[in-house]
Amino acid sequence: MSKAKIEVLEDIYAENDRISSIINKEFDKKGIFGVNVLGSPGAGKTTILIQLIKRMPDIKCYVVEGDIESDIDTVTLRKLGVDATQINTGGACHLDAVMIQKSIDDFELKNDGILFIENIGNLVCTAEFNIGEHIKMIIASVTEGSDKPYKYPLIFENADVILLNKVDLMPYVDFDEEFFLKGIRVLNPHVPVFKVSGKTGEGFDEAAKWLETKKKSY
Amino acid sequence: MSKAKIEVLEDIYAENDRISSIINKEFDKKGIFGVNVLGSPGAGKTTILIQLIKRMPDIKCYVVEGDIESDIDTVTLRKLGVDATQINTGGACHLDAVMIQKSIDDFELKNDGILFIENIGNLVCTAEFNIGEHIKMIIASVTEGSDKPYKYPLIFENADVILLNKVDLMPYVDFDEEFFLKGIRVLNPHVPVFKVSGKTGEGFDEAAKWLETKKKSY
Repeated sequence: MSKAKIEVLEDIYAENDRISSIINKEFDKKGIFGVNVLGSPGAGKTTILIQLIKRMPDIKCYVVEGDIESDIDTVTLRKLGVDATQINTGGACHLDAVMIQKSIDDFELKNDGILFIENIGNLVCTAEFNIGEHIKMIIASVTEGSDKPYKYPLIFENADVILLNKVDLMPYVDFDEEFFLKGIRVLNPHVPVFKVSGKTGEGFDEAAKWLETKKKSY
Repeated sequence: MSKAKIEVLEDIYAENDRISSIINKEFDKKGIFGVNVLGSPGAGKTTILIQLIKRMPDIKCYVVEGDIESDIDTVTLRKLGVDATQINTGGACHLDAVMIQKSIDDFELKNDGILFIENIGNLVCTAEFNIGEHIKMIIASVTEGSDKPYKYPLIFENADVILLNKVDLMPYVDFDEEFFLKGIRVLNPHVPVFKVSGKTGEGFDEAAKWLETKKKSY
C-alpha cells in the first residue's frame, strides 16, 4: 500500500476514535450503557436483541440498526415496541462514530438505559471501528462452524462478551465446541461465552443478567 | 467523506480493475476459467469447492484460499489432493487483484483448468473488487436467513451463479425460500440458483454440470 493510502487510513482511524470518545462521554453523562453488537450476516443479531430486551423490562432499551440497505430489522423491533432507529450505510461495510453521532439524536436518551448498536453483518471491518460503545458483544452461531476465531481473530480478541447462538441446531451440524472455545481462549482468555438459542430462548436469562451487572459496573 | 479520501478510493478501484483485466487476459491465454467464490463467514465455501471438484475429475482444478489468518481450509484441500495455495491478508477484508497476481505464480497453470478463488468471508467489501475472474459464484446458506439479498444487494446483483447451501437444515430453520428468491430476482432476474447441501452432496451434480458448460462458453 502506498504511503498516501496508509496516511489516509490512519487519518480515518484517528478521527473515528476521537468522535467515538466524545460519544462515549455523552453516554456516560446521560447514564447510557452502549453495546456494539457484532457478527456475521445471519448470525442472529436482531433475534438476540429481542430476547435480551424482553428479559430486562426495568431498563429502557434503544436500538440503532445498521444495514447496508433495507429496514427489515427496525420494522420488526418497532412492532415489538422497541425504540429503534435505522442507519443505512448505502454500501459502507461498517458503522463509524460519525454515523452514530448523527443517529442518536433520533432518541431522547434517558438515564439508566442501554443503547444497542447493531452493526453491519461483517466479522472484519466492523472490528476496526469504535463507535462510542462501552462493550463489544459478539454474536457467533454454531452453523458458521467452529473455526471462526482462528479465521477472524481480531473481532474475538476485542470481544467483551460472546453469545454463541443457534445451539438448538447443534445436533444437526458438525460444530466442535472445544475447538471453538480453545480458539477464543488463546485470543481472549477471560471473555464470558453464553450458549443461546434465539429460536427457543435458551440461555438468555444468564446473558441478560450478565449484561445488567456489567451495566452497573460502569 | 472528504474529497481526498474519495480520490484515494477511486484510485484504488481503478488500479485494481486494471490489474484484474491483466489477470483475466492471462487466464484466457492459458485456457484457465477463473471463479471468484464469495459468501458470509461459515456459508460453506470450502465444502462446496470440495463437492464441485470431485464431480469434475476430467478438469484440472486449482484453489486460491483467501483468509485473514490461518490455513485451515488449504490444509483440508491439500489432504484431498487439490492443488491449493493460501493468501493470508493479515487483516484486509477482501482479496484484491494484486494479491491474486502474486499468488497464481504458485501454480503451473495448465490449459483447460478451473481456478477457484475463495474470497474472505464477507458479503460487502468482496463485492467491490474484481480479481481477474470470469464469473462470481455466491454461496448463501439457509441458516443465514432469507433476507440477505435485501440487506446485501450488491453481491447478489453481481452474481453469475448462486448456490444456496445447507438445504439439509431447511426443516429446522425459518427460511422463506420465496422471499429469498424474490429478493434475488429484483436484483438479478436471470441468475441460476442451485439448492445444495455440502453435507449430503445434494444438488451438486447439476451445479457442476452448469459450471462445466459455462466454462466451455468462454
